[in-house]
Amino acid sequence: MSRAAPQRRVSRIRIGEPPVSVRDALAGEEPLEIRVHGQSLAVTMRTPGNDFDLAAGFLVSEGVISHARELVTMKYCDGAGDDGVNRYNVLDLALAPDVAPPDASVARAFFTTSSCGLCGKASIDAVRTTSRFELRDDVVTVAPELLVSLPARLREAQDLFTSTGGLHAAALFDASTGELLVLREDVGRHNAVDKVVGWALREDRLPLRATILLVSGRASFELVQKAAMAGVAMLCAVSAPSSLAAELAQETGMTLVGFLRDPSFVIYAHAQRVSPSTTS
Amino acid sequence: MSRAAPQRRVSRIRIGEPPVSVRDALAGEEPLEIRVHGQSLAVTMRTPGNDFDLAAGFLVSEGVISHARELVTMKYCDGAGDDGVNRYNVLDLALAPDVAPPDASVARAFFTTSSCGLCGKASIDAVRTTSRFELRDDVVTVAPELLVSLPARLREAQDLFTSTGGLHAAALFDASTGELLVLREDVGRHNAVDKVVGWALREDRLPLRATILLVSGRASFELVQKAAMAGVAMLCAVSAPSSLAAELAQETGMTLVGFLRDPSFVIYAHAQRVSPSTTS
Repeated sequence: MSRAAPQRRVSRIRIGEPPVSVRDALAGEEPLEIRVHGQSLAVTMRTPGNDFDLAAGFLVSEGVISHARELVTMKYCDGAGDDGVNRYNVLDLALAPDVAPPDASVARAFFTTSSCGLCGKASIDAVRTTSRFELRDDVVTVAPELLVSLPARLREAQDLFTSTGGLHAAALFDASTGELLVLREDVGRHNAVDKVVGWALREDRLPLRATILLVSGRASFELVQKAAMAGVAMLCAVSAPSSLAAELAQETGMTLVGFLRDPSFVIYAHAQRVSPSTTS
Repeated sequence: MSRAAPQRRVSRIRIGEPPVSVRDALAGEEPLEIRVHGQSLAVTMRTPGNDFDLAAGFLVSEGVISHARELVTMKYCDGAGDDGVNRYNVLDLALAPDVAPPDASVARAFFTTSSCGLCGKASIDAVRTTSRFELRDDVVTVAPELLVSLPARLREAQDLFTSTGGLHAAALFDASTGELLVLREDVGRHNAVDKVVGWALREDRLPLRATILLVSGRASFELVQKAAMAGVAMLCAVSAPSSLAAELAQETGMTLVGFLRDPSFVIYAHAQRVSPSTTS
């Protein structure tokens, strides 16, 4: 039984018909603890699979690392069982000697201030001062016809959603060709994005110039932050963005697209990367 | 301009047509810091509005309080401006003298262990040992016909979603009559549920016997945990539950319904609270 999509006996009810008992696949959810040099840094509820990508991407998102060489090793705390399957849900990471280890408050750095007056602007400033990549340098332009073709490509590649109906997806596309570079799924949309970013770090592709990050749901402040930390200059969401997501995209120089559903979409920030339609 | 649904100028693109620039309402998102006796406990990105409900519900969800009298005061850290509008996004709460103040790790108590071997079971055990209400005592039964009528009632009452397309909702219904008791919306589904739970605490309705909690999206471990901490014995989701959500519901005695879409739904745990259909 897959840990990413475990099965369970359920009752299907339809008004006017007798109940039907069937085995059904659910979206797998288990806790993962991320440690750095043995110190617990974060626990996230995630769908098992691509855990190394998730942990690496989490550290990029939080501003701890931005290059593959800064991450020396990753290992499961108790290793795998005889069958090679990990059962322990604890990852321990080692950073290069010149990388400052994160402190326990890292996961809150983008949200909190020590004074009264916490606001969206303070959160935006925290991302701007932490990010190592300048999105304004990415002057790629994308045709609208290419953009509207992406959600269908994402759905085609989304294996787990097909069986469970319960997973978010994040996918990275080449902005010139529309080629799908990587797709990751998770019960948490932030985890799906971290998995994509961690894949990119481990492939030594950061900053992610000339790419489009597409998420299957909504775009929150947190997702824009993660995209910015990875150098992604174009974030597209199938559903709505939040107000602070749009503000952060505007301030960091990111193109933010929402409600991307063929044949239309809405641009919330930096429309200059979307080229005039070739069919109008 | 409403902070719950601020407006922004956007470009609507449709293939083959010229771009249209319009003002559009977005789902409001701002940070809220929750303090207890001046000590910072948590920061959450939320949709402004019903902040007192959110803070109170957060403390119930985390096992800090379970009764209205345990929460003495809540106030914005810097108070409101001359126009009565809060701009500060920091709430300070005071607990009754006999309530143990939470420590900084409270928000992680349900996920983490100190040893290798972190797993879903440990997370479930943490909820079971922290919860003050026994869900098995709630022997209410609900007709399938009533259940399938609830999502339409939720959507009718969902004001902000209509304007922004970007908010999760959580609603509480009387299990006997189907009456809508309260509805709360937020960019974060966990916040929407905390707002409902906080409303219930402040109305002195905990534990929430003989009620149905309906959420507009998916059901994760975290949402089942929050429902269990409030004594809700029936949680329904319009979309899919995760594997750990179903396991936690099973272990705590909660009825968990997913894919609730008239005229059908799926029962993942404790089907005994759904009465046989009256129309079959």
